[in-house]
Amino acid sequence: MKPKGPLVLIVMGSDSDLPVMKEAAETLEKFNVPFEMIISSAHRSPGRTIEQAKSAAGRGIKVIIAGAGGAAHLPGVIASVTVLPVIGVPMETKSLAGLDSLFSIVQMPKGVPVACMAIGSPGAANAGILAVQVLAAGSEELKTKLTEYKKSLEKSVNEKSEKLKKIGYRNYKG
Amino acid sequence: MKPKGPLVLIVMGSDSDLPVMKEAAETLEKFNVPFEMIISSAHRSPGRTIEQAKSAAGRGIKVIIAGAGGAAHLPGVIASVTVLPVIGVPMETKSLAGLDSLFSIVQMPKGVPVACMAIGSPGAANAGILAVQVLAAGSEELKTKLTEYKKSLEKSVNEKSEKLKKIGYRNYKG
Amino acid sequence: MKPKGPLVLIVMGSDSDLPVMKEAAETLEKFNVPFEMIISSAHRSPGRTIEQAKSAAGRGIKVIIAGAGGAAHLPGVIASVTVLPVIGVPMETKSLAGLDSLFSIVQMPKGVPVACMAIGSPGAANAGILAVQVLAAGSEELKTKLTEYKKSLEKSVNEKSEKLKKIGYRNYKG
Amino acid sequence: MKPKGPLVLIVMGSDSDLPVMKEAAETLEKFNVPFEMIISSAHRSPGRTIEQAKSAAGRGIKVIIAGAGGAAHLPGVIASVTVLPVIGVPMETKSLAGLDSLFSIVQMPKGVPVACMAIGSPGAANAGILAVQVLAAGSEELKTKLTEYKKSLEKSVNEKSEKLKKIGYRNYKG
Amino acid sequence: MKPKGPLVLIVMGSDSDLPVMKEAAETLEKFNVPFEMIISSAHRSPGRTIEQAKSAAGRGIKVIIAGAGGAAHLPGVIASVTVLPVIGVPMETKSLAGLDSLFSIVQMPKGVPVACMAIGSPGAANAGILAVQVLAAGSEELKTKLTEYKKSLEKSVNEKSEKLKKIGYRNYKG
Amino acid sequence: MKPKGPLVLIVMGSDSDLPVMKEAAETLEKFNVPFEMIISSAHRSPGRTIEQAKSAAGRGIKVIIAGAGGAAHLPGVIASVTVLPVIGVPMETKSLAGLDSLFSIVQMPKGVPVACMAIGSPGAANAGILAVQVLAAGSEELKTKLTEYKKSLEKSVNEKSEKLKKIGYRNYKG
Amino acid sequence: MKPKGPLVLIVMGSDSDLPVMKEAAETLEKFNVPFEMIISSAHRSPGRTIEQAKSAAGRGIKVIIAGAGGAAHLPGVIASVTVLPVIGVPMETKSLAGLDSLFSIVQMPKGVPVACMAIGSPGAANAGILAVQVLAAGSEELKTKLTEYKKSLEKSVNEKSEKLKKIGYRNYKG
Amino acid sequence: MKPKGPLVLIVMGSDSDLPVMKEAAETLEKFNVPFEMIISSAHRSPGRTIEQAKSAAGRGIKVIIAGAGGAAHLPGVIASVTVLPVIGVPMETKSLAGLDSLFSIVQMPKGVPVACMAIGSPGAANAGILAVQVLAAGSEELKTKLTEYKKSLEKSVNEKSEKLKKIGYRNYKG
Repeated sequence: MKPKGPLVLIVMGSDSDLPVMKEAAETLEKFNVPFEMIISSAHRSPGRTIEQAKSAAGRGIKVIIAGAGGAAHLPGVIASVTVLPVIGVPMETKSLAGLDSLFSIVQMPKGVPVACMAIGSPGAANAGILAVQVLAAGSEELKTKLTEYKKSLEKSVNEKSEKLKKIGYRNYKG
Repeated sequence: MKPKGPLVLIVMGSDSDLPVMKEAAETLEKFNVPFEMIISSAHRSPGRTIEQAKSAAGRGIKVIIAGAGGAAHLPGVIASVTVLPVIGVPMETKSLAGLDSLFSIVQMPKGVPVACMAIGSPGAANAGILAVQVLAAGSEELKTKLTEYKKSLEKSVNEKSEKLKKIGYRNYKG
Repeated sequence: MKPKGPLVLIVMGSDSDLPVMKEAAETLEKFNVPFEMIISSAHRSPGRTIEQAKSAAGRGIKVIIAGAGGAAHLPGVIASVTVLPVIGVPMETKSLAGLDSLFSIVQMPKGVPVACMAIGSPGAANAGILAVQVLAAGSEELKTKLTEYKKSLEKSVNEKSEKLKKIGYRNYKG
Repeated sequence: MKPKGPLVLIVMGSDSDLPVMKEAAETLEKFNVPFEMIISSAHRSPGRTIEQAKSAAGRGIKVIIAGAGGAAHLPGVIASVTVLPVIGVPMETKSLAGLDSLFSIVQMPKGVPVACMAIGSPGAANAGILAVQVLAAGSEELKTKLTEYKKSLEKSVNEKSEKLKKIGYRNYKG
Repeated sequence: MKPKGPLVLIVMGSDSDLPVMKEAAETLEKFNVPFEMIISSAHRSPGRTIEQAKSAAGRGIKVIIAGAGGAAHLPGVIASVTVLPVIGVPMETKSLAGLDSLFSIVQMPKGVPVACMAIGSPGAANAGILAVQVLAAGSEELKTKLTEYKKSLEKSVNEKSEKLKKIGYRNYKG
Repeated sequence: MKPKGPLVLIVMGSDSDLPVMKEAAETLEKFNVPFEMIISSAHRSPGRTIEQAKSAAGRGIKVIIAGAGGAAHLPGVIASVTVLPVIGVPMETKSLAGLDSLFSIVQMPKGVPVACMAIGSPGAANAGILAVQVLAAGSEELKTKLTEYKKSLEKSVNEKSEKLKKIGYRNYKG
Repeated sequence: MKPKGPLVLIVMGSDSDLPVMKEAAETLEKFNVPFEMIISSAHRSPGRTIEQAKSAAGRGIKVIIAGAGGAAHLPGVIASVTVLPVIGVPMETKSLAGLDSLFSIVQMPKGVPVACMAIGSPGAANAGILAVQVLAAGSEELKTKLTEYKKSLEKSVNEKSEKLKKIGYRNYKG
Repeated sequence: MKPKGPLVLIVMGSDSDLPVMKEAAETLEKFNVPFEMIISSAHRSPGRTIEQAKSAAGRGIKVIIAGAGGAAHLPGVIASVTVLPVIGVPMETKSLAGLDSLFSIVQMPKGVPVACMAIGSPGAANAGILAVQVLAAGSEELKTKLTEYKKSLEKSVNEKSEKLKKIGYRNYKG
């Protein structure tokens, strides 16, 4: 029932984005969703980026996750040549704190959407979850896993709250 | 083969968001995707909002589109109680030009993604397209329509460029 | 005369907010105001958050203090289900420096106020003071303590100014 | 049981703030809360502003609402000389859209809180509600009214949603 | 001596950018620099955009001017496939006032520069001037014209100042 | 006792700044301070700007007021060649609302101060007042006038407050 | 000829501002201008702040320098009760990087100017220079010193440039 | 064929900009383009700055690169007195993260363009590339080198992607 090939393509513009983008990969692994991960820049390797984006659907990819910083054209360039859903992750930047990445990714024109996530690590992890949510439309198994994941989030919060109550805020170390 | 019930739920926090959010509805109609549209506020009708979000998957909804402005909690509140993909549309606001709506929608914490679109009308239209892209994972028909739509975008740009070339920029009226 | 149960509920969305939110707790302790402190997230434990907020008034709580970062829906979600005054504390965030938290908390729509404090620690401490100011409406004792606190602030500034005058700015170490 | 004198003092820095600040007044009237309203500037009439703020508690005022724009020192100056809760309303400004007013009001230092509302009209209306919430601590009548008000907000949203459902989004005129 | 074919390629992402981008065209006409002007979108007609950018140098183009708004990928996408100097003009946008366009154009990564101009009309006019300055490296005629243009700017300012002095500021109508 | 020549030089970069900068002139006239007003741009007439700034002290000018928008180099360029106090007025701009002008004027490096005023008309009027405050160091007459002016500001606020009290906020028309 | 008492009053809202504000003091010392330096907060010691500002002119003060961060009301509060020129120095802040301090200081309303400097240390040093420039109106000695200071700035830059030329940019260590 | 004198002038306002601006120098060296590098401030050494800018064309300079931070007038001041293309590099700043430098450089008025690069190091490197692109208009050799450089960028990205594929994202260290 589960396809052998990757269902999600993770692209990042630079290997300096890897410490953030690996959160997307780890999330997909948690859900047993096969993926492939490449480095391809909208600006430095435009040909390969477009080729990868164009061929993705044909080789079984269902969702593309793209992370980029600064002018951050990667998600938009990919979205311009595929009809697959594209999820964009804005990288934090040294000067403008990721506001530049955010604007470049989220402000796409009518006709060519990119699903923009939060800046940095939380956004990369959430890109993984959103990809699973998209895939879950065709998989009861993933739907069940998402529901369990949601419960685990709540459980974790509640346990921390219990601990805080028990030991008091002065002793709580996180 | 096509379900009778709505596949997409469009929620907006206030009827003042309708002139923007109707772009999502019009887009879905263009793709023949059945949807339902409600007004429900995260702050003024929280109970009904959560009830609608929780029951959505059960009644056949596959994607939720939520538009809100200012503190703009609607998409995030919905995402907190469903595992369906939630698409958020930040409304332009009078004072902060939609930057407040954007930050409130896009900066979701790890574990609970919202797919954020551009501020205002382009974002609402794109929420419709992204919903179709998600649904297209399970529908060759929608995939074909998306490819045709993409071609129509390109054709429209090219025709305008031809017209510009023919009559010259001084005579071009748009 | 003093109630036995807590008068203030301090909620934070994550235990990573504790180093900031403990300033609210410490302030309330200084004024001998009993409080309870829980961790409950608007996004990860929405059910419990709403339940806690709804039941607060019934168990004697008079003011709710809620701290959150990023999309920061916690204070607004709480305010949507209670008529108690809700004080919001925007957390500093890694990427947007707390501007996202601030906008998400302060830009509440007409009908559902949240009393927004400054970003980070000063805001958390001030949330404690504001809670005391609200409670002081029904307590001469708290009113007196607030007046004394105000005097102590002035005294502390004046003493530093005297020290500066005496030893000179080159020798002043703070 | 109800005091004859005003319980809330509404101050604005300039009569150009009145079209916004009257929303606070109208809200208080809706709840039958007596108030007084004055124009007094932190910069142009500092002496009277401080005198009014200092004497407020003595003449029965329980909450002060202060609206100001630009450098917007009014709420902070008032908070510096009273232990009453002070609610600040940032005015929209021509150049910086109210971001200047917001920062000037919300970023108060530790020890002297101002409860900051949203920029402009929604903020002024909410200042009225928050004042009522503070007063409701000592009044079952106000608590009941607030609960009714909350229900009326929900009812109004639901009615609009019903209307939208009935006539369709293309015919809805708001 | 003057080439017959166009030396400058002006590209805009949408015909709605024409009222701004025509300032670039008018400036080039003032300097008798032949240009061609096309509409081609980075997102809606990516193939043609890249083809036009790639072929530009081959058909005699020396400088490319690209105007775009919002996510504004056009100048960067062009710069990714040509070694010609690319000048970017950020369009004013409805929601974020052009700050999104500016960040998307100016924050290009190391290796792929775009020469960013001011937001809107002044930027479009200056793109024309900068293109002439680049071409002037190989043309004494253009160098002379630029020097004359610079003098005309100064003369115009001085005449206005003289007029102001003569008729007084109360009578000056611009 | 009063010098015959102008004491204040008002410079603006463009005649489009006149509707704002005339507030500085009107203020100086109110205080009977002689001034001269010129149009000279830091970018389009740099030579004359520097010449005017350099010669100002020599012909009796005591304070320079400079208004500019966008990159807004005028006040800084003037301050670079004179030891007179330079007051800068940031113009509101179409795209960035004057934030660009403000940053360009206020963020001067160590060694070369510009006294920055508020954006737009209030800033221009205040530039006039600040110039008078500087001149008042050597004039009892101006000191007296400033004190009277301050009183008139307070009086005007108080009268408006009285009127508001008398006729009620519903009837107040400003 | 030189007055014995201080000519400049330096006020800061907190002793944590001293590391920045001492730059103003050091600058004044360099010009042999006598000053006094106090800590007085607009919010925590409002009475003393106003008293100090009101009495300043009477005891020979000619210029007031006030540094503050966050809501940063100090310069504006001082300016509200004196006709002396007030120079404001916005402190860098932890969350909003001093943008809050800047807006609170620079956006003063018509009638009550504050001369705003750059954020942080360069601003504090420049407050010292501007104070000297104001005092120089009545002192040939200070005028001469300012001219010498200006020359020393230029000389220092030129020497660095010479050194860079001599040893090359790879060997230059600053 | 290659001129002996420098073709590019690199100017920076302060030697603290050198660690960033050396990227421009290193880039030019990679392309064997002779340059000269000076320190000259728009504010502290305005005379020399203007003299250097004015004389540049005469001594064979074809492009000027100017880096500055904060009020960042250097590129604009240079552009005001030369018809050579001027490339501006905004420095990151301590308080406003380079947003001040960016606005001051990019928002030039109609008639006097500055080609603005990204904030900080990537911008300085790109200033070097853009200078080469301008010079390449008259040099087949530089055109060829630029094409090779572009290929090397792509090759470097591809190699990293291959490595990532081979060793897996958990083992990739950059």
